[in-house]
Amino acid sequence: MGKIGVGLVGWGTVGCGVIQTLRENAAAIEARLGCGLELMRVADLDLARERPVSVPRERLTTNAEDILQDPEIKIVIELMGGLKAARALICSALEKGKHVVTANKALLAHEGNELFGLARQKGVSLSFEASVGGGIPIIKALREGLAANRITKIFGILNGTANYILTRMTDNGLTFAQALKEAQGLGYAEADPTLDVEGIDTAHKLAIASALAFGTPIQFDRVHTEGISRIDPIDIQYADEFGYRIKLLAIARNVDGRLEMRVHPTLIAKNHVLAGVKGAYNAVHIEGNAVGDVMLYGMGAGMMPTGSAVVSDLVDVARDILNGTPGRIPPLAFLADKLEHIEIKPVSDVKTSYYFRFLAFDRPGVLSKISGVLGNRGISIAAVIQKGRHADSVPIVMVTHEALERSVMEALEEIDKLDLVLAPTTLIRIENGAD
Amino acid sequence: MGKIGVGLVGWGTVGCGVIQTLRENAAAIEARLGCGLELMRVADLDLARERPVSVPRERLTTNAEDILQDPEIKIVIELMGGLKAARALICSALEKGKHVVTANKALLAHEGNELFGLARQKGVSLSFEASVGGGIPIIKALREGLAANRITKIFGILNGTANYILTRMTDNGLTFAQALKEAQGLGYAEADPTLDVEGIDTAHKLAIASALAFGTPIQFDRVHTEGISRIDPIDIQYADEFGYRIKLLAIARNVDGRLEMRVHPTLIAKNHVLAGVKGAYNAVHIEGNAVGDVMLYGMGAGMMPTGSAVVSDLVDVARDILNGTPGRIPPLAFLADKLEHIEIKPVSDVKTSYYFRFLAFDRPGVLSKISGVLGNRGISIAAVIQKGRHADSVPIVMVTHEALERSVMEALEEIDKLDLVLAPTTLIRIENGAD
Repeated sequence: MGKIGVGLVGWGTVGCGVIQTLRENAAAIEARLGCGLELMRVADLDLARERPVSVPRERLTTNAEDILQDPEIKIVIELMGGLKAARALICSALEKGKHVVTANKALLAHEGNELFGLARQKGVSLSFEASVGGGIPIIKALREGLAANRITKIFGILNGTANYILTRMTDNGLTFAQALKEAQGLGYAEADPTLDVEGIDTAHKLAIASALAFGTPIQFDRVHTEGISRIDPIDIQYADEFGYRIKLLAIARNVDGRLEMRVHPTLIAKNHVLAGVKGAYNAVHIEGNAVGDVMLYGMGAGMMPTGSAVVSDLVDVARDILNGTPGRIPPLAFLADKLEHIEIKPVSDVKTSYYFRFLAFDRPGVLSKISGVLGNRGISIAAVIQKGRHADSVPIVMVTHEALERSVMEALEEIDKLDLVLAPTTLIRIENGAD
Repeated sequence: MGKIGVGLVGWGTVGCGVIQTLRENAAAIEARLGCGLELMRVADLDLARERPVSVPRERLTTNAEDILQDPEIKIVIELMGGLKAARALICSALEKGKHVVTANKALLAHEGNELFGLARQKGVSLSFEASVGGGIPIIKALREGLAANRITKIFGILNGTANYILTRMTDNGLTFAQALKEAQGLGYAEADPTLDVEGIDTAHKLAIASALAFGTPIQFDRVHTEGISRIDPIDIQYADEFGYRIKLLAIARNVDGRLEMRVHPTLIAKNHVLAGVKGAYNAVHIEGNAVGDVMLYGMGAGMMPTGSAVVSDLVDVARDILNGTPGRIPPLAFLADKLEHIEIKPVSDVKTSYYFRFLAFDRPGVLSKISGVLGNRGISIAAVIQKGRHADSVPIVMVTHEALERSVMEALEEIDKLDLVLAPTTLIRIENGAD
């Protein structure tokens, strides 16, 4: 049987996973594909660093051009990360008629639309299963497995680092700072954890998944994004008393022809499957108008899971090479000329339920005043907890029925101005799972 | 854009789901595929029955030959169910060079190997996403999404009827007979529920999924199969006290080059995701040597979910027609000449943990006698409950550490012969999730 030549740019953690997967599973891959995948070259600027997986010296290079110029290499794997250099590499590879497999969600979120356009123009594939949900075949499910559906909603946990931190805060009572420090010590979080803990990485992934789900170009800059760095252990405790866990959720819904895309800490019922997703696991619910509710769960990151996704993409691309059908399936699931610019709903138009924690002077009538302001804006209270006392102040915690975010913001502005109220109110949205 | 002609044989519940999905989602399907799917004819012996979805009279026929003979029809959907007539229809369609999409797990479990051989010979597709897990894209995940992996284990809940009955028994204290009757009243269970409650339907699905996972021909007759009809509410209660739920699980593992395939009631820890799968939902864990543990969850049956799977297959097959690449992916994931006859482990060679309920005379030394027999066979007890009393008898309930099934059977034979023991011992296997 023949071989298809592959080149890898970026010999980091995921790169090692790709090399090991190709090596360990060569026989199984060949038995499926009818052809081998040969990793001909590996490029990285730093070849000296200690790594868990070795590469024969003659296949190593510090110059990605060696891969781009090699006519035997049909597929280039981009695992450099970052934006500018990765973009340049991918563009060069596509321009040269090479297929590209990438895990670079940041780049796709920012420039995917242009890159997919270039791939189409050049008649090659640009594949990215590893960019969302690590090893979980989410992209394939959205693009092919559920192709019979109009997707109405996707929501889930898409960042293992943030989920690890929240899990430690919930199960072990750590503060955000403590849990973050631990995650950094374990290598789960970067020295600069902004992308993970501020929800930006989750937003990258949601933007990509939403495009596939709803048939719209990637609109990353329209994702409403909030992170978990301001989550206080006290809110985790109160949420627990109301029957909820706090998770960093990505939520996208098509409501009456407008698209909601948001990433924020969210209360979700303890008995919901997502509440049980712990540590570095990811999980995504997909709602289709035929299939109903489908959920996919697995490791959202890591050397081998992400390597699994990259190599599964390689198998797909190789099959298209063997069949002479490159770009057989549109990367964003819908044909490029069928993608619609669906209007994005501003977050002020979102309707959902809310958790509020007020800090007020412990005076008679304070609850009545606060609930009065809410009532005037049509915000109806589902449950209240008022207990404990710090000196003269009292926390008042409540969850609401569904309300319009604009009304909520107006009400909180008014409440935070009350003399009785001591601190800005904490707001966390609630997701009820069902539409 | 063009149209690809489709014919449907079997206008039942799932058939209605297919028709409705094709109708409601025509625009979304065409936007993905670049071509319409036109349902040209629907065949059923009974056209008079009331149905939730109508079909224009001129497209209806009682004669499947009208579909087989129509050169415009490129894809035949087989939803007749049953073995003999369905087999004849599929063979005729394949012989005529038509592609076939089926949801018929019983037929594939029994005769899939021959049918896939015929499809290959004729250069057409035989697709079957709907045969396992209803709307959940399990087949696609096993065949493509996880193609980089060697799959080491699959286990899960694959029959919604049995799961509904066990859920009602667990959550509401019904007996098996009561829950079955209710399920029949709701249309979830057939008048003859044997296939569902005796685990046979689950075994059909496990045999198919195992072939895809492990690269072996379908070996349905080698699946060890036990159903749930003998599950006593008392065992559900004791399992609960030990921290377990009882589920009808399908389990397949590749252990040292031999394959374990078994379907039986199983204790699974309450905090395991599968324990929370309720009612008619299905869920499957897949363990791959690269990806780790992946889980897929969704509706395992029903008009629209199963319709979603059938129509997603249609989209795939239509894409292959448009690209001139029929049979592009081997139906059992591995190339036909790469399928290996992996040896199936007899259940007596299986190693797992066990739940036992003994009924014994309430005499001093009875526990010591029973545990002595177990100890002599190397079966180590993890926990025991001995309490309650019915007249002179006492139930002794225990869970064991991992033991060899052969030793367990020998020990129980010996124990059941003891004068002190009043009734045959109840045995239920335990699944710890991890390998």
